[in-house]
Amino acid sequence: MRRQLTHDIHNLIDRGRDRQLRLAVTGLSRAGKTAFLTSLVNQLRHAGIDARLDLLKSAREGRLLGAQRVSQPDLGIARFPYDEAMASLQSSPPQWPEPTRGISELRLQLRHRTRRAHGLLGSTGTLTLDLIDYPGEWLLDLPLLEHDFLSWSESQLAAMGEARQQFAAPWRQAVQAHAPEDAVDEARLAAIAEHYASSLRDAREAGFSHLQPGRFLLPGDLQGAPVLQFFPLPGVGEADRQRLETLPDTSLYQTLAKRFRYYQQHVVKPFYRDHFRRFDRQIVLVDVLGALNAGPERFEDLSLALSTLMKSFDYGKRSLLNRLFAPRIDRLAIAATKADHVTADQHGHLVTLLESLLAEPIKDLRYADVPVRAFSLASIRATDAREIEENGKRQPVLRGHGLKDEPLLIYPGDVPSRLPAPGFWERQGFSFTAFRPLAPADGALPHIRMDAALEWLIGDKLR
Amino acid sequence: MRRQLTHDIHNLIDRGRDRQLRLAVTGLSRAGKTAFLTSLVNQLRHAGIDARLDLLKSAREGRLLGAQRVSQPDLGIARFPYDEAMASLQSSPPQWPEPTRGISELRLQLRHRTRRAHGLLGSTGTLTLDLIDYPGEWLLDLPLLEHDFLSWSESQLAAMGEARQQFAAPWRQAVQAHAPEDAVDEARLAAIAEHYASSLRDAREAGFSHLQPGRFLLPGDLQGAPVLQFFPLPGVGEADRQRLETLPDTSLYQTLAKRFRYYQQHVVKPFYRDHFRRFDRQIVLVDVLGALNAGPERFEDLSLALSTLMKSFDYGKRSLLNRLFAPRIDRLAIAATKADHVTADQHGHLVTLLESLLAEPIKDLRYADVPVRAFSLASIRATDAREIEENGKRQPVLRGHGLKDEPLLIYPGDVPSRLPAPGFWERQGFSFTAFRPLAPADGALPHIRMDAALEWLIGDKLR
Repeated sequence: MRRQLTHDIHNLIDRGRDRQLRLAVTGLSRAGKTAFLTSLVNQLRHAGIDARLDLLKSAREGRLLGAQRVSQPDLGIARFPYDEAMASLQSSPPQWPEPTRGISELRLQLRHRTRRAHGLLGSTGTLTLDLIDYPGEWLLDLPLLEHDFLSWSESQLAAMGEARQQFAAPWRQAVQAHAPEDAVDEARLAAIAEHYASSLRDAREAGFSHLQPGRFLLPGDLQGAPVLQFFPLPGVGEADRQRLETLPDTSLYQTLAKRFRYYQQHVVKPFYRDHFRRFDRQIVLVDVLGALNAGPERFEDLSLALSTLMKSFDYGKRSLLNRLFAPRIDRLAIAATKADHVTADQHGHLVTLLESLLAEPIKDLRYADVPVRAFSLASIRATDAREIEENGKRQPVLRGHGLKDEPLLIYPGDVPSRLPAPGFWERQGFSFTAFRPLAPADGALPHIRMDAALEWLIGDKLR
Repeated sequence: MRRQLTHDIHNLIDRGRDRQLRLAVTGLSRAGKTAFLTSLVNQLRHAGIDARLDLLKSAREGRLLGAQRVSQPDLGIARFPYDEAMASLQSSPPQWPEPTRGISELRLQLRHRTRRAHGLLGSTGTLTLDLIDYPGEWLLDLPLLEHDFLSWSESQLAAMGEARQQFAAPWRQAVQAHAPEDAVDEARLAAIAEHYASSLRDAREAGFSHLQPGRFLLPGDLQGAPVLQFFPLPGVGEADRQRLETLPDTSLYQTLAKRFRYYQQHVVKPFYRDHFRRFDRQIVLVDVLGALNAGPERFEDLSLALSTLMKSFDYGKRSLLNRLFAPRIDRLAIAATKADHVTADQHGHLVTLLESLLAEPIKDLRYADVPVRAFSLASIRATDAREIEENGKRQPVLRGHGLKDEPLLIYPGDVPSRLPAPGFWERQGFSFTAFRPLAPADGALPHIRMDAALEWLIGDKLR
């Protein structure tokens, strides 16, 4: 009798456990956000049918009953284009989905049986999972809030390496024709700003990541608006502050400063206020192999960009965010994507390399008590693992197709287990090959360790 | 002595007359908004130098001193691309500027001498003129505020003529698979909505103008968002209201109704609230010749679209806008553009035709005491007027180049002086030829009656 009552109470509690979770996915351009989200939705849709999710406890125990797409809560935000992505993957030859631009979302409703003592299954529960995809570039703008125009300007010019200087040459020539006190007309300002934006685009094209202001690269509806038409001002610094502050409103300096403030208030802050503060969990995707391919200067730049990006998750004392609002992300994953582009024996190195790339931000996060875990994964596996014999030795290789549909059977090379020393880059570079997706087959998309990432990100909500 | 004092007081008053004016330019796609604004800026920049502005009193009297572009007030709105438009016009062969999408603005500062008694010139005054360009399609959404989803749905289906029905066939097939009480998933809804949006795009391509909801045609950053994914629901009407209202939130009917409300609140109203209510003067451009070319069904449709569009300027009792806020437009111009595409003897007909096309809205505006005047003009003249002798009779003709750069010397035909009767269309159609701009020359852009429109729109502020 008493036992029955306890059981009923448990049932009641379980039924009350309909949960909501907002899981955000980010990463810099080409890190693999679209592939990750597409696979995540696909795996959960196929859970309990043919998805291979052994590392997700609720799936392994047969308690994950299924997932349905339901209406998203924010009607003014683009829906994540899952169907379009699947259509690309299922075209012939299969293609990687188009990258998303800006923010998009998708809501899944997961049904699962709760776990009871003695391995018995409890009643069913529902988890409403909001998936939000947004450009990592937007997080690179966070430090911009710590600056005013003058200090931002100095910091940008100081951070410009040799290659960036080269891209910025036409901009520098244009801006140097004007003194801070000049009255510069709007058209001329727009032309100089376009030189600056174009130097950022060129830098991104050349593999650089640490680029500010982020919206200059993805302007959307702000295209052509003055708020995206400012730039650092060379030749002035803290020593000039007093003189600069007294310049009239129409001066070049004051005009740029005004636009910079508008950008802070109307572009950077609204993202944090309207979106970021509502995220519960976050995964940051990193294309480590792509960065190794790009060489030491870009690799160093990626490391800097990631440190900046991760600051948005560091709620320690030094955090700006606490001053803006109270963020609530309580669990973070960082993942090296495209693990299928190297052989399985290298996956461990991929994780340790990622961890050493992010060593400083991870320390800060641990100090701030934000649980963080590193993974290597392939959202959508594009290669098959094979072995060949060479000189009597067995050697793991990858079989797949290149981006031009050419069949490939290669050993892509070793991944360093930690940050390569400068001397290393001189001896050898990296050249990891890009693969197109595998030919479509029935059932869930093939993957590597998506289930491990899922267990970390949502597993505790499926108990 | 007394006289001197009066003089000084006058001077003081005059100096105090630094005025501000927000002049908005609209029209449906291809009405010639970009050409009009480009020419307007160009004429004012060249005022007092080589612009031919005899019908603008202040210019004729030599009191308009010049115009400068200055920083626009709204940093988050695109700058009107004047320089890009001028570059198109000055390319070889010259081209019409790219049409603008969405809203843009530009601020001019005009300096003028005030007029004094006895023809003496007074002191100088400044007029800050904000020019705002926005799609007329946005105004077509106003009546949508008078509806709820059910009545809107009925009205849209009732208004669909034969040709529109044809474009809408794939949408109708898709939507008819679902009953209002069905739970329809987001992806399926998005697919049906895409059929609907595509029927609107096809209709526009085919020359139709009266298309709702306007943002479906120019989505911008809302591309892919659920707020742009609704459509009318066939087979239900007022009689079903009670049953429909009790359907669950997840039903097709309630989902569409929710999105419709979101569209009203977050898309339609903000334009009126943030922009429209701040306009002081308005010019509406109409491509009458293009509509004549398109035949009776499209012509009728344009008439309907213009009546709808003009409702935004009718502050009479019936106006919805009074309930939203107090608009302040105190003077309105309507203009038939591309007058240079017919011979000068037809210009009078162009105006009377425009007036009969807008007869009803003009009556309403006069009743509501909003001063309105009709013009025919060519923002940027693309032809030269010539005469030829044919059978001993002198005949006016136009000389210019077609859009493929071919030289033309033609008599484009007569413009009817009022709405063509149905019988008329059966006997003959219209076929007005499109011209490319004239080869660039020094000085202001050539135009027809831009000065008359300017006198009506800003003349009283340059006294």
